[in-house]
Amino acid sequence: MAMGVKFEIKLPVRYYEADPMGVVHHSEYIRYFECARNQWLESIGYGYRRTLEEHIVFPVVDLSCRYRKSALFGQVLTVTMEIVDFNRVTATFHQCVLDPQGDVCAEGDVRIAFMNTETGKVVRCPESLSKIVDNQFNNN
Amino acid sequence: MAMGVKFEIKLPVRYYEADPMGVVHHSEYIRYFECARNQWLESIGYGYRRTLEEHIVFPVVDLSCRYRKSALFGQVLTVTMEIVDFNRVTATFHQCVLDPQGDVCAEGDVRIAFMNTETGKVVRCPESLSKIVDNQFNNN
Amino acid sequence: MAMGVKFEIKLPVRYYEADPMGVVHHSEYIRYFECARNQWLESIGYGYRRTLEEHIVFPVVDLSCRYRKSALFGQVLTVTMEIVDFNRVTATFHQCVLDPQGDVCAEGDVRIAFMNTETGKVVRCPESLSKIVDNQFNNN
Amino acid sequence: MAMGVKFEIKLPVRYYEADPMGVVHHSEYIRYFECARNQWLESIGYGYRRTLEEHIVFPVVDLSCRYRKSALFGQVLTVTMEIVDFNRVTATFHQCVLDPQGDVCAEGDVRIAFMNTETGKVVRCPESLSKIVDNQFNNN
Repeated sequence: MAMGVKFEIKLPVRYYEADPMGVVHHSEYIRYFECARNQWLESIGYGYRRTLEEHIVFPVVDLSCRYRKSALFGQVLTVTMEIVDFNRVTATFHQCVLDPQGDVCAEGDVRIAFMNTETGKVVRCPESLSKIVDNQFNNN
Repeated sequence: MAMGVKFEIKLPVRYYEADPMGVVHHSEYIRYFECARNQWLESIGYGYRRTLEEHIVFPVVDLSCRYRKSALFGQVLTVTMEIVDFNRVTATFHQCVLDPQGDVCAEGDVRIAFMNTETGKVVRCPESLSKIVDNQFNNN
Repeated sequence: MAMGVKFEIKLPVRYYEADPMGVVHHSEYIRYFECARNQWLESIGYGYRRTLEEHIVFPVVDLSCRYRKSALFGQVLTVTMEIVDFNRVTATFHQCVLDPQGDVCAEGDVRIAFMNTETGKVVRCPESLSKIVDNQFNNN
Repeated sequence: MAMGVKFEIKLPVRYYEADPMGVVHHSEYIRYFECARNQWLESIGYGYRRTLEEHIVFPVVDLSCRYRKSALFGQVLTVTMEIVDFNRVTATFHQCVLDPQGDVCAEGDVRIAFMNTETGKVVRCPESLSKIVDNQFNNN
């Protein structure tokens, strides 16, 4: 379900995100990944306001990241996501950060769950969200 | 009231807090200041758990900071605070970050207010807090 | 010299920039201010690559910030800068962060110096930069 | 070689590290992991000053992290590392973040390489470092 849904954003590297080696700190890519996922949710009408209304958040369950090339301050990066699994209890995104030459700087997989903010419990993916994602998949 | 209450903490600089110049990014000192204030609150029995119970938070109203010397990764810094004003509606802390030589890296003033988290409104300083602070002052 | 040069950027709030109160942490506005200054430098042809070539960086000397309204995750903010002083040794920027309603969330002044990265010494503003800034001012 | 070398640090959660859900943001654990590795290096006499002298840095090659329980502002966390592989070209650390109850909040593996800062090239682990690590292992 929903495999192949893709989305990407552009992000200029911020000065403070680069470390004393002059390269983007490895923890920042994890944040860039989240920015892409959140902007995708926003783009499909499931942004923060909606998640507040539906009492839902998306805690990260696990992630992996491979670092291949240093991204630098001064670059505008491309951050991509592709849904590689979307089942009733978790969704997995394959994500990349590319530099302006199109080289992959970092690549990883992030798996999220669905949690009800009122109960603090993990829940099934709300139908309101799974329907939108399914539609996006079918139109892909 | 409560002028002269002092507190300090030690903080090792973290690698990601240093920027491409190899020095601590100027925004981090603002965070170090807050760490010292929060650990002071913890030390007087007014830590996060207590603020949750009393539905109180301490939003920063304004701040200033002068940067004098670069702090570096590898250093253990001293972050100080001194209450320079504590009235019914705001409290002002004079704060410094010192490097291992005792030189002042950054120095500033941070003014906070008291906000009720249930109403989202600015309130008077809770008596439970002002009493503790007064006691600390008198024992100073 | 150069008073009145203005620039602004749009920045979507990132999830991790909001704190447990659900509002943008006060240290992030200081970072947003820098993002605007750096993108302005980029826009006038004095971006990171150029600063590397000219061995120049812009350390913050002092800053102040007044916090007026909470910015929230889910909002796209406007970050503005206006040069209010630009002399041979420092430049001062008045900066604001505005929410989507146009309300000022934070407002401050940031003064930077010019430092040679080879000597580590404060220097006069490089002519290459002051000329560009003067031109921008005259065309304003 | 060097398997089983263990080290741990205590870290109080900082307010800005918690997100709007009131829990430590998932990217922060990646940073906590690095803090533990860097303080271990410091403790064995291979801190930042030494790495500068030997022109060596330790870029992260890949990492994984599983999130099991939310860490909260107000808690003092324990961050652990154990060397699970240390060969000529990479070292792998198994790392955990535990809350005050001793429950594992996050657990992961971080693999680093050795890079010469003058050439920007990946190199073999410097003998000066591998000797220290071997000694630590033998005394374990």
